[in-house]
Order: sequence, then C-alpha cells, then structure tokens
Amino acid sequence: MTASDRWLLPDGVEDILPPLAGKIESLRREIMDTYQRWGYQLVIPPLIEYLESLLTGTGNDLALQTFKLTDQLTGRMMGVRADMTPQAARIDAHTLRQDSVTRLCYAGHVLHTRPQHMLTGRTPIQAGCELFGSASALADQEVIRLMLETLRIAGIPRIHLDLAHVAIYQSLMSEADLDSQTEAEIFDAMRRKSIPELDTVLGNSPQGSPAARLRALARLSGGVEVLDEARQVLAGASPQALKALDDLTSVASVMAEAFPDVDLGFDFCELRGYNYHTGLVFAAYAPGHGQAVAQGGRYDAIGRDFGRPRPATGFSADVRALVALGERQVPARDGAIWAPVSDDASLHAMIADLRKTDTVLQALPDDSSTTPAARGCTRQLVKRDGQWVVESLNG
Amino acid sequence: MTASDRWLLPDGVEDILPPLAGKIESLRREIMDTYQRWGYQLVIPPLIEYLESLLTGTGNDLALQTFKLTDQLTGRMMGVRADMTPQAARIDAHTLRQDSVTRLCYAGHVLHTRPQHMLTGRTPIQAGCELFGSASALADQEVIRLMLETLRIAGIPRIHLDLAHVAIYQSLMSEADLDSQTEAEIFDAMRRKSIPELDTVLGNSPQGSPAARLRALARLSGGVEVLDEARQVLAGASPQALKALDDLTSVASVMAEAFPDVDLGFDFCELRGYNYHTGLVFAAYAPGHGQAVAQGGRYDAIGRDFGRPRPATGFSADVRALVALGERQVPARDGAIWAPVSDDASLHAMIADLRKTDTVLQALPDDSSTTPAARGCTRQLVKRDGQWVVESLNG
Repeated sequence: MTASDRWLLPDGVEDILPPLAGKIESLRREIMDTYQRWGYQLVIPPLIEYLESLLTGTGNDLALQTFKLTDQLTGRMMGVRADMTPQAARIDAHTLRQDSVTRLCYAGHVLHTRPQHMLTGRTPIQAGCELFGSASALADQEVIRLMLETLRIAGIPRIHLDLAHVAIYQSLMSEADLDSQTEAEIFDAMRRKSIPELDTVLGNSPQGSPAARLRALARLSGGVEVLDEARQVLAGASPQALKALDDLTSVASVMAEAFPDVDLGFDFCELRGYNYHTGLVFAAYAPGHGQAVAQGGRYDAIGRDFGRPRPATGFSADVRALVALGERQVPARDGAIWAPVSDDASLHAMIADLRKTDTVLQALPDDSSTTPAARGCTRQLVKRDGQWVVESLNG
Repeated sequence: MTASDRWLLPDGVEDILPPLAGKIESLRREIMDTYQRWGYQLVIPPLIEYLESLLTGTGNDLALQTFKLTDQLTGRMMGVRADMTPQAARIDAHTLRQDSVTRLCYAGHVLHTRPQHMLTGRTPIQAGCELFGSASALADQEVIRLMLETLRIAGIPRIHLDLAHVAIYQSLMSEADLDSQTEAEIFDAMRRKSIPELDTVLGNSPQGSPAARLRALARLSGGVEVLDEARQVLAGASPQALKALDDLTSVASVMAEAFPDVDLGFDFCELRGYNYHTGLVFAAYAPGHGQAVAQGGRYDAIGRDFGRPRPATGFSADVRALVALGERQVPARDGAIWAPVSDDASLHAMIADLRKTDTVLQALPDDSSTTPAARGCTRQLVKRDGQWVVESLNG
C-alpha cells in the first residue's frame, strides 16, 4: 500500500463531515426524544456479543451480514451487531424480564459485511423502537404510527407504506408440506419476486392447492383493491391464512383513515431477509428510492428462542438515509463570536459566560490564514475602556 | 452452548439499561453541545477502516487493541476503530485539508480486544476534541481547559490533573544513542514505572549522562515542587529537553492560576501507550479511581504520516466512565400521562398534541399486569362530557 492510497476508505464506508454530521446528530436527538415521549425507554446494547446470542432466532441472511471476531479472552466466536432488534429482544427476555409491556428504543452504528443499501453502505446508524409483551393489533398500529412520525420528523416528502403479513405465506407453505429444498427455492423466488422461477418450482399445481394460491398471491401487488383479490385467492384456505388476511385488512383500514396522505400498498411476496418476522410486517418508501427507509413488523418467535416467549413488534430506520432522503430543516444558529489571542483572565471569564449560549472561537497566535468571517463569525470580542464587549464584526 | 448461557455477554461487554442509558445520552449531548460552542465541529468517523489507515502513525499498543476483520469485497484487512483520534487526524489531513486551524469533535463507540479499564470494558463510548494546525502553547491550554470543562459538566468531584512532556524522554533517549532493543526495554520499564528494572537496564550510568538523567527523572513525581528538581536533573541537557521542561512549567503556571481547585501533578514516566504523542501530554484523575477519566496531548507526528504535516493536540474521555465517576444530576421529568385503550381519532389527536412536550403511554388491551403508577404515570387521559382531559391519576 503506497502513501497515496493509505487513507482510502473501504467501499461502503465513509467519513461523515460537517455540516452533514450535525444534521444527523440533530435528527437522531429529535427522534430519540420523540420515542421517549411515546414511552419507549433508551437502551444501549453492546457493539459485540457472542455469535450465538447475536444470531439466535434469526435467519441465514443476518449471519451472512455479520462480521465475525474471535474473543481473545475465551477463544469463542463473537460478532459485531448487524441489527439491533435481536439485541433488544434479548434485553427484554433476559435482562429486564418485566411481565408488563416493555417499550425500548435505541440508536447506534451497526456493521454489515456487504453494503445493503446505497445510501448507508456498510455502517448504517440504526434507530428503532421495539414493543414487547402485547400481541394486540393496537401494538402493531402503535409502532406503525411511530414509524410514520419518524418519517414526518425527517421530512420525507411523500410516504408509501407497504403492508404485508408473513403468516399467509407460512400457513400456505405448511399446508403444502414440501421438502425443505423446495421450500428454500420457493422462499428465494418469492423474495426476488421471480414469477417465472416460482412457476418452474411450483409446476402445474391444481386449482385451490396451496401451491396454486402461492403462485396467484405472488402476482398480486398494489393498493387496497388487491386485498379483495387476495380474499378470492385464499377462499377455502386455512383459518390461519384467513385470519392473517383479516388482520392485514383491519390495520390497513385504520392507517388509511389516520394517514390519508400516506400511499398504502400490499405485497404478498414480502418475506424479509432476516427471517425472524412472524406476523404483520411493514416498510416505508420515499419517492425515487427503491430501498425502504424504515421497516419493521411482528416477530413473536425470538422471545421463545431466548427462553421466554413474548409477543414483539417494532421498527427501525437508518438515520443517515433519513437525512439524505428527507427535507428536514435544522434551525440556523447565530453566527459565532471571535475572541482575540490573549491570556487575560477577564477575557477567559467573559468567554466562559458567552459560551453558555453562544459559540466563541478563540484566535491562536500561529493561525492567520483565514478571516474570522470565513469561519462563520459575525461578532467579535474587543476591549473598550478596560472592558471586554461584543461588537459586530463589521462595526 | 446451552440455552441458559446463550445470552451471557462476553467479559468486558455489557447492556446499558434505563435509567443509566438515559444519563449517558444526556451527558453525551451536553458535552457535545459544549464542544460546538467552543468552535469544535462534529465529525462521525467510520466504525471500520483498512488497518493501514487506522494504525498509521500509532504504536504497537493500538495494533494489539484493534480487532481485525477481512474485507469480503477486497480480501484486505480492516480493523474496528479502537481510538478515534487517528481517524480525526486522517480526516483533517486528507478529507478536510483546511489551511487554517481546524477544530473537530466526535462521540461514538470504540472496540478493544481486551478490557483496558474496569469501568468501560471493551466497548468504551469515546468522546473527544482535536485541534489541528496550531503549535502554540495556547492550543494545548485550550484543549486542557475544555477537558476540565468536560469533567466539571460530568460532576467529577475533585480533579487531579497530571502534566507531562514526552519530548523530555525522547530527547534524552536520542542523546543516549542506544540500540533499539535496549530502547524498548527502557520504554517498557518507564511505562510500568519499574525503577528496579530501569536500574538494571541502565546500569551504572555516569553522573550527567542521559541514562543517569532518565533514572533520576523516573524517581520524580509529585506537585509543582518536582519541576525545580527536574530542572536540576536536566542542567546541561539538550536544548530540546530544557525547552520541553520550560513548556511544561509555563502551562502548569497558567493552569494553577485558572483552576485553583484542580490538584496538579507531574510524572516524567508518562509516555502513553498509543505512542503517537510528541509534546505536552495530560491526564485527569477522579478520586479513588486509578485510571485516567480523560486524557490527551500533542501529537504533531501523525499529520506527517498522513502525508500532510500539521501540529495537533486534543483529548478524549469515556462517557460511560464519566457518568460512573461523576455526580451530575439529570433534571427529573414530569410524570407520564396514561391513555386508555381506544381507537378514537379524537383521543389520538389529543395524545399527539400532548406528546409535543409530555410523555404519554397508551394502554394495550392485553397488558394489565402493572398499574399506570408503577410505570411512572402521574396523570391520565379521561373523557368528560365528550372531551378528553388530563387529570391527576389519584384524583
């Protein structure tokens, strides 16, 4: 490696500089404050854990996204977190162990082996909320409302909300009773929305069979009108599948009324890569950007894997992407105050007092390459009749 | 791994739960706001980088502390940052490339292969400030003042400030002209303050030789009175060593006047493990805790290693340790408001309005295991004559 490329950053890894870093910090604070006002309590899960606990109850995708490290103290494998949701579930199930509903929120860096998302690369700043202990549809609605509030704060101009329910797919697959190889092929084809592949794998399934229903559902996507079409496809299907469709329809009607500006969509292929979801799932999209800006759903199964069954639902978003796609305005600050080079104790006292509310930049003797104005100063400290006073820089 | 130990965390790794997580977030915000009011601009360096850029200009200790990862995209070695100071130096030298003084601040997790510090384990939350482009003693003084302000905000009750200057040791070693093996042994013995080992390595050095001066300095530690003793030991030493002692004396007298409550100490063995410091170094201690709670110093050499020589000085602290050792009070919030289970749109509108300033917890139908009061609620929303109103929970 030569000196000139020593400071190239890896693909999908970036320095976040001023003023972008300030915008990210400001949005991060506002959404975390909002989460707390909704009753979600802040937790700070660790950056690393043993691999087993980091990946418990999750699918293969998360394992592939997780960087592995050897613990030098024990020789055991650890991972750098690639998703904070399973960490929050572990904290709820094992550390907090409350019987009542537990609402947690978090914000921090996660690390991915490969870039998943153009805007966020391999080091997204994940912020999210998780609600444990309620299987109620109102819990799902609460986290969807809070996700939409997050996007409103971020200034995402027009929001498209996709709703889906993984139990429809799961109950059809369980009815179809296929071998695990075929199941994996179908899962893969559904996730990539590859209708031709799905047709090849499922073959000529008889009308009304679970396989035929899956093929028909995979073709459905669109607004509320597809819920009726799905109901026709699922006529005579298992009670679980019909119950899932009812839940989906019911949350859709609540959201349509509460958020008339949000464009609703349904997609029966949406299975989520991390594979821990069990019920209603949802994702929000911003105009002109193919990847979801925020997403979540119900994942009642992780609690069981952690030894304590708890219903769970939640969402997360990448703060970096929210800033890139949103149009949030950060209020402009007053210009800074320039202070001269001086050891004078009365000047230092005056500066300390001003810094309670204002920014004060103090000059250094070997720094004269730019003007105070070029550094954002609009005022300066000058000594008049033995007193330090603030004056306009142009005055 | 059995189910019961699946969620054990590795040694030196912890979940940070409420209310501690909230205290850490609150202190983090207050110190970052303070840094900005001192003119330090926020940067967010990446969690991972190529190992070469992460370790450029640093010593072997940082390499040992850094977790290594293979980049699956290129096969090259990356590291998870163990210290953000070299990242800030790279950003200054390579990314920002300003000619004038550049002041940067940051806060984020770093990761260590082994716990360095009882309070912070392997995942400290490092917050710090770096000042690039000024070789002036006033720049050193500015960062020391800001470090002490950080500790004041954190509520550290009595601060002990240790001052040292690595150029004294470096100029004596360069004068002594030893082989690199002996140099490494001396460095090691000095850092561990092992006088017997130092005596063994340096042998019977003649009076006035660099080796004899080193042995004498290693025995010195204490308050301002040891500066005079050091001046006697260094009588006739190189101009560099004498200049370093002068700089140390001068900053000590400024700090003694500006911070009469801070207890000053001097230690000529202080060489810093990361090995990138070149001038004045400083560390702050809290009562009853052997590890520094904040530390920093001058490191003019890193800029050169990044292809652009820039004088630099700065400090950092671990926010987790500051909260543990400080006595900062977080202002108590008003009690939360309890809202009943309801789909009523007028209730949701009222809740949204209240959440602009207050915390509102909404009940869920399957959650009745504790009372609203047990969850921190002091008020509740009730419907009176068709209107939602806030009432005392006891009323």
